[in-house]
Amino acid sequence: MSATPSESALAQHIRHVALIDQHVHGCWLTAGDRRRFENALNEANTEPLADFDSGFDTQLGFAVRSHCAAILGMPKHVDPQQYWEARSRLTEVELARLFLPAAGVSNWLVDTGFGDEVTDVAQLSQLSGRPAYEVVRLEQVAVEAARAAGDYASEFEAILHRRAATAVGTKSVLAYRGGFDRDLSEPAAAQVAEAAQRWRDEGAARLTDPVLLRFGLHQGLRLGKPLQLHVGLGDRDCDLDKTNPLLLLDFLRTSGTTPIVLLHCYPYEREAGYLAQAFNNVYVDGGLSVNHLGARASAFIARLLELAPFRKILYSSDGYGPAELHFLGATLWRHGIHAVLAGFVAAGAR
Amino acid sequence: MSATPSESALAQHIRHVALIDQHVHGCWLTAGDRRRFENALNEANTEPLADFDSGFDTQLGFAVRSHCAAILGMPKHVDPQQYWEARSRLTEVELARLFLPAAGVSNWLVDTGFGDEVTDVAQLSQLSGRPAYEVVRLEQVAVEAARAAGDYASEFEAILHRRAATAVGTKSVLAYRGGFDRDLSEPAAAQVAEAAQRWRDEGAARLTDPVLLRFGLHQGLRLGKPLQLHVGLGDRDCDLDKTNPLLLLDFLRTSGTTPIVLLHCYPYEREAGYLAQAFNNVYVDGGLSVNHLGARASAFIARLLELAPFRKILYSSDGYGPAELHFLGATLWRHGIHAVLAGFVAAGAR
Amino acid sequence: MSATPSESALAQHIRHVALIDQHVHGCWLTAGDRRRFENALNEANTEPLADFDSGFDTQLGFAVRSHCAAILGMPKHVDPQQYWEARSRLTEVELARLFLPAAGVSNWLVDTGFGDEVTDVAQLSQLSGRPAYEVVRLEQVAVEAARAAGDYASEFEAILHRRAATAVGTKSVLAYRGGFDRDLSEPAAAQVAEAAQRWRDEGAARLTDPVLLRFGLHQGLRLGKPLQLHVGLGDRDCDLDKTNPLLLLDFLRTSGTTPIVLLHCYPYEREAGYLAQAFNNVYVDGGLSVNHLGARASAFIARLLELAPFRKILYSSDGYGPAELHFLGATLWRHGIHAVLAGFVAAGAR
Repeated sequence: MSATPSESALAQHIRHVALIDQHVHGCWLTAGDRRRFENALNEANTEPLADFDSGFDTQLGFAVRSHCAAILGMPKHVDPQQYWEARSRLTEVELARLFLPAAGVSNWLVDTGFGDEVTDVAQLSQLSGRPAYEVVRLEQVAVEAARAAGDYASEFEAILHRRAATAVGTKSVLAYRGGFDRDLSEPAAAQVAEAAQRWRDEGAARLTDPVLLRFGLHQGLRLGKPLQLHVGLGDRDCDLDKTNPLLLLDFLRTSGTTPIVLLHCYPYEREAGYLAQAFNNVYVDGGLSVNHLGARASAFIARLLELAPFRKILYSSDGYGPAELHFLGATLWRHGIHAVLAGFVAAGAR
Repeated sequence: MSATPSESALAQHIRHVALIDQHVHGCWLTAGDRRRFENALNEANTEPLADFDSGFDTQLGFAVRSHCAAILGMPKHVDPQQYWEARSRLTEVELARLFLPAAGVSNWLVDTGFGDEVTDVAQLSQLSGRPAYEVVRLEQVAVEAARAAGDYASEFEAILHRRAATAVGTKSVLAYRGGFDRDLSEPAAAQVAEAAQRWRDEGAARLTDPVLLRFGLHQGLRLGKPLQLHVGLGDRDCDLDKTNPLLLLDFLRTSGTTPIVLLHCYPYEREAGYLAQAFNNVYVDGGLSVNHLGARASAFIARLLELAPFRKILYSSDGYGPAELHFLGATLWRHGIHAVLAGFVAAGAR
Repeated sequence: MSATPSESALAQHIRHVALIDQHVHGCWLTAGDRRRFENALNEANTEPLADFDSGFDTQLGFAVRSHCAAILGMPKHVDPQQYWEARSRLTEVELARLFLPAAGVSNWLVDTGFGDEVTDVAQLSQLSGRPAYEVVRLEQVAVEAARAAGDYASEFEAILHRRAATAVGTKSVLAYRGGFDRDLSEPAAAQVAEAAQRWRDEGAARLTDPVLLRFGLHQGLRLGKPLQLHVGLGDRDCDLDKTNPLLLLDFLRTSGTTPIVLLHCYPYEREAGYLAQAFNNVYVDGGLSVNHLGARASAFIARLLELAPFRKILYSSDGYGPAELHFLGATLWRHGIHAVLAGFVAAGAR
């Protein structure tokens, strides 16, 4: 990350400023084949890629070849086969030791809510050489509470407070459990008890009960630490149209002062920016989207910079799996922010 | 607004052409503190900005520093504190006398439907040195009709015709009174009488009754003067997702020949442009949005110039409060139109 | 289409590569007046243009003058009157012989589902000198089945298979018959028989029965040839908001392996690209939109190139009527693809 002589002060600052990756997952620890890697370059599909499809045939695939090749000592835009071969010569741990520090991230805020075979918070910190902190998944707390012996609501609160003592925030995947187009008010205690009993009777697997989802959300609010919400882009298990953040308006109107962070947001980044202007406690983030948009990330970032007050636009990679994603998020964010701001400067200079 | 020698004919024309600001409010007359000014740079929030937030930390805040500083005799991008100090040395009336004429506006069409402590139509004309005309707020006519003695429908019609005799159009804020996702057909006389009686019994404060809102809308249509509709961007009192202009399709299909102007439109400017192509009587306008998008206004204007027939794209500032907004709207519109058209020319020349 | 000396290899390739126009209609055969031509430059309106409106006052009108004038031996941006006069000196057949070959299209896939007075598949092939193949409109098969003597479902299947023997795919205009916001699952045989009886009793004109629409759609799926769906931009007979392709999620989740092509897509091209990433069998296409966006087509194409895997982005013109549209679609697609890819290259080189 050394500056070239002719680089502007703006470019130098953006290149060197340390980023907080405020929503990220672990990276792989175990070896996998090329199909695993290529499937990790597709976000939306829940099935394996078709035999004749390649994860490289996407914006993200091109961005990997463009920006990650140098970290592996190869020229920009090396072809997919060569990229894969170079990657294969290293273990996932070795890859993490290369890519994580290269991201220029000062702190990792790690959503531990899903994923086996990936680094936990301590491992991510150790491999990157930087502090990492936990973000607690509310739907995971719900499962733990349902499997505990006592009253569901009390157990939920106890588990949340215990885990949150060392965590920096909470996260909800309500978007994946029915979406936002429903009542999101806080349920009464009796409703919660009844719904919890029903869920426990059914085995308390994946939480989809609307009452318990709402209960968890409001417990997160009450905790007061930043509450992250999955918004927009994700896999097809969620109905993308039911994750439009404007459907959160009633919820936000009663959300008080707990910071709420809208994650990902594609293709609703303009709506999310509106909400960041409309509510003192709402923040926006373009993680995941920036990686998958590759060369189009700067166009997306420009739209994030429309109505959102600037201080409320946060960085994250949402990296999960290949360590490339933890690095690439930061790289594309820096490139995009630079392209957009330099464009503003150029337009103003005319 | 003098031309530089190397300026293109296109740039010169755009710089000098007089604009009709076809939807605007009054500007302040009375002194206020810095928080009032900074809050006026936020549209969406209905609460005061948080103590640690600044209205300058937005596209609009940067645009004020970029484009308005020169009018106060300061360099471009003067810092917020200096800008505020310079502004504070003048009264609001003195500011209006500087900023209004600098907009290059030939006529102001003034929505008088809300706002105390701002100029009325005559004052705006006097301070700018240009003619100003009234646009009558239909929901205000409704309140007047409810408070009159006679039959509601007859009173509404009489008041509307009396006020419209000297007005150039009407305006509806249906978007703020429940949105567009409902029956918008003309109600029967008996329904109107019944709803009016109920509303009068309740004290006839803010109009939210769907029957009376529809009645007013169709009275506006029947009048035949341009009917302006708030669409999209506004404060969080409206549900932004219920102001998508596509929800007006059934209404527009039966709207006849009265010109209907879709105001603001963000983030639905492409949908609004579609409607301007689909209906001979529909027009679009990007007022308010252009100010709040600042350096991104040209991207927004480019999207307005997609499906809308060009003659049906109108200018407004929607300025309200600081006189800067009346000036800035015109300045950003001129900049954006130039940037977009120059881009088309450059692409065509390749 | 000769290369200029300084043209990049990318530009040369894009200029010369043969395109498959995978969704197109016939072009006019019979003479018409200027209003017919200008109305053909408006897509969304179902009424004639107002007397004071001109089809030239649009992005498409400017694109015709910019790109089609040269084919008629006139300078770029010749004025509308001169363009019309030049066009009038030729018959529609002569115009087709000029514009169709100039498109650089190797194969035409022709939706024969509507339009009198336009070329059929054989005529389009003959006038262009290139092979053309039929795409069968499912709603047309439905009408034929309803008018046949036997059991509706059996007749539908027989007609579809007979017609599909020489066709390359099917097409549905479900978007125009109520939209996507409804149950799209396969109906039971008894439901189909009952609905068919009802429709036959009513005279079997335009198909709007939801059961029979769903039946046809699933017959198209079962056939296994690519199934094209009208999505987004079209005339105001459809509710544009009910053609958001995200409303197809449940249908796509059970659609198996038959290729499904989302046509047009404006203003939902980003949502459509998401679906192309989410489903192995989903493809996207920007036909019709590209023509009507003219100078803004490249911005639209850039958005198509966000989440969709690159191999799943298809070309079509959706030309219908003026032969200009069959040519212009290809020209704007080439220009837009070049502008977008050259922009990616330039950004990467920084």
